[in-house]
Amino acid sequence: MTERCSYAARYINRGQVSASATAFAPANIALCKYWGKRNRTLNLPLTSSLSVSLGTHGTTTTIEFSEHDTLTLNEKQIGLESTNASAKAFAERLWEYIDLFREPGECLAVRTSNTIPTAAGLASSASGFAACTKALNDLFGWQADDAALSRLARLGSGSACRSLWHGFARWNAGVREDGDDCYAEPFGSDWPDLRLAVCPVDTSQKPVSSRDAMNATVANSPLFRGWEACVTRDLCAIETSIINQDFERLGKTAERNALAMHATMLGCETPILYWLPATVDAIHQAARLRADGIPIYVTIDAGPNPKLLYQQQHEAVIAAQWPDAMLITPWSA
Amino acid sequence: MTERCSYAARYINRGQVSASATAFAPANIALCKYWGKRNRTLNLPLTSSLSVSLGTHGTTTTIEFSEHDTLTLNEKQIGLESTNASAKAFAERLWEYIDLFREPGECLAVRTSNTIPTAAGLASSASGFAACTKALNDLFGWQADDAALSRLARLGSGSACRSLWHGFARWNAGVREDGDDCYAEPFGSDWPDLRLAVCPVDTSQKPVSSRDAMNATVANSPLFRGWEACVTRDLCAIETSIINQDFERLGKTAERNALAMHATMLGCETPILYWLPATVDAIHQAARLRADGIPIYVTIDAGPNPKLLYQQQHEAVIAAQWPDAMLITPWSA
Repeated sequence: MTERCSYAARYINRGQVSASATAFAPANIALCKYWGKRNRTLNLPLTSSLSVSLGTHGTTTTIEFSEHDTLTLNEKQIGLESTNASAKAFAERLWEYIDLFREPGECLAVRTSNTIPTAAGLASSASGFAACTKALNDLFGWQADDAALSRLARLGSGSACRSLWHGFARWNAGVREDGDDCYAEPFGSDWPDLRLAVCPVDTSQKPVSSRDAMNATVANSPLFRGWEACVTRDLCAIETSIINQDFERLGKTAERNALAMHATMLGCETPILYWLPATVDAIHQAARLRADGIPIYVTIDAGPNPKLLYQQQHEAVIAAQWPDAMLITPWSA
Repeated sequence: MTERCSYAARYINRGQVSASATAFAPANIALCKYWGKRNRTLNLPLTSSLSVSLGTHGTTTTIEFSEHDTLTLNEKQIGLESTNASAKAFAERLWEYIDLFREPGECLAVRTSNTIPTAAGLASSASGFAACTKALNDLFGWQADDAALSRLARLGSGSACRSLWHGFARWNAGVREDGDDCYAEPFGSDWPDLRLAVCPVDTSQKPVSSRDAMNATVANSPLFRGWEACVTRDLCAIETSIINQDFERLGKTAERNALAMHATMLGCETPILYWLPATVDAIHQAARLRADGIPIYVTIDAGPNPKLLYQQQHEAVIAAQWPDAMLITPWSA
């Protein structure tokens, strides 16, 4: 039994099995980023993080017992022999995850579809593994609680542990080597006028995967030793700003946290620069709008596409300045 | 007597005074950057740095005894009452420096002119204070040695201590609180086919001065705690690559050192981002050229203007890709 298998086994007990189960999980964007692992096998992070979910944008996954293993992604069947490298990698990762939970000989048909337009360049692994975990919970009758599902989703993809709920989620890094105290929980209350916009400046495959970039940063960027202090500084400010619904503090802190994360990668022996000219342009454009009294802030994940944080009343400004942006309402009316 | 005054007094003895003295000093660009002070009064740095001078591009300064203090910069007279803020700041800084050395009642006429086109956006304070120090040495007959002149120039502007020579100069940070072991020295030998190109993407005044950015980084960027390790990593590699005239290693190391310096500023409570879209474009363009087998690297000082490192044989590529670039030959034929 592998370390991942025995970890998973601690949180599940198979109960009444269903023939089929379907679940949805939203995508999420971290306001205080997850960057750096203390355990790569169990996806235990070095620092805590906090995200907001993307409303109806996410992944719906249906799993049912079947004669053979089949995997369908966005209506397209994907085999382990696929010639599309990223589809093949996704299939390998998903089956490796499902293998943690199924009995020998059990075959499954998995149909997963993302409601996040691929053109938005948003990662779907968080919502994908969260939806898969929820569907498996129903299929195998685990009746696991949220903390257990969050721990399990984490094994698929670290940030998936934050995608089990709508709204804000805080992922506690924990300190235990066995990872028992490492899971996400909902945080704060609804914030209906909070908005996000995703600006797709380049949605082609990244030159370096997030996972490789994160591992390189931890391994050889001398700047990474300051990252934990950045999170200590920013996480507390973000939590307070959520509780007080203080948008400017939330935005300012989320922006500096994202810039600091990208900065740690620039310190690598072979620097990693995800930003493109349009990424930097968005940062400066947001600063100019703020100077004009319109509070708009930027966050950027491990890629070039800026995401803007704004309030409902400034939607027209966003639409005018970033006509290609995809506007997201985390809390639907 | 101020701390700066008594520091200066340790390295000078007035000898045979001349009526007038003229000196030239080249500008320099750091390949391993100076970023962060351990003593702001004496300009003692936290880390060592290494630069290359810019050939004939620099500052020529003439100082002579006069009835009244006068200061001419690039043929234009500048008074302390000037309405041009940057000219006024320059005048204040220069007279404050000269006051360290002159007797009460002595008036001087200072004429200084930069051979660096203002449009290149290159700092002239390093060559300016170095030329001023050399001229004062001749005017007051100090007969100071190079190490002493380097220490004195440092009081005017930190990086000025590297501008007393042509070629490479290494500024040793030193460890002494009194700053006696903190000065620059020539390093390595000539490297005739080494070239630099300055790409002026924005030469307007910077939103944050280098000095303020450096002090903010030291004061509140958690990422700065990794900077010393970046310098330890990079300085040794740069020295070895100069000794071996290994251009690719020099370029790769200088580029990552510059990116790491900019990264430390992104960690500030209020992040400092000097880069513009064209800055990032130059970094990616150089990477694409390297992928095509043409070794071109980027370094960037505290501002948006990229400087390219290349070898003579690739000058045509530089001229084609960056038609606005100013091409610099550190060692003239």
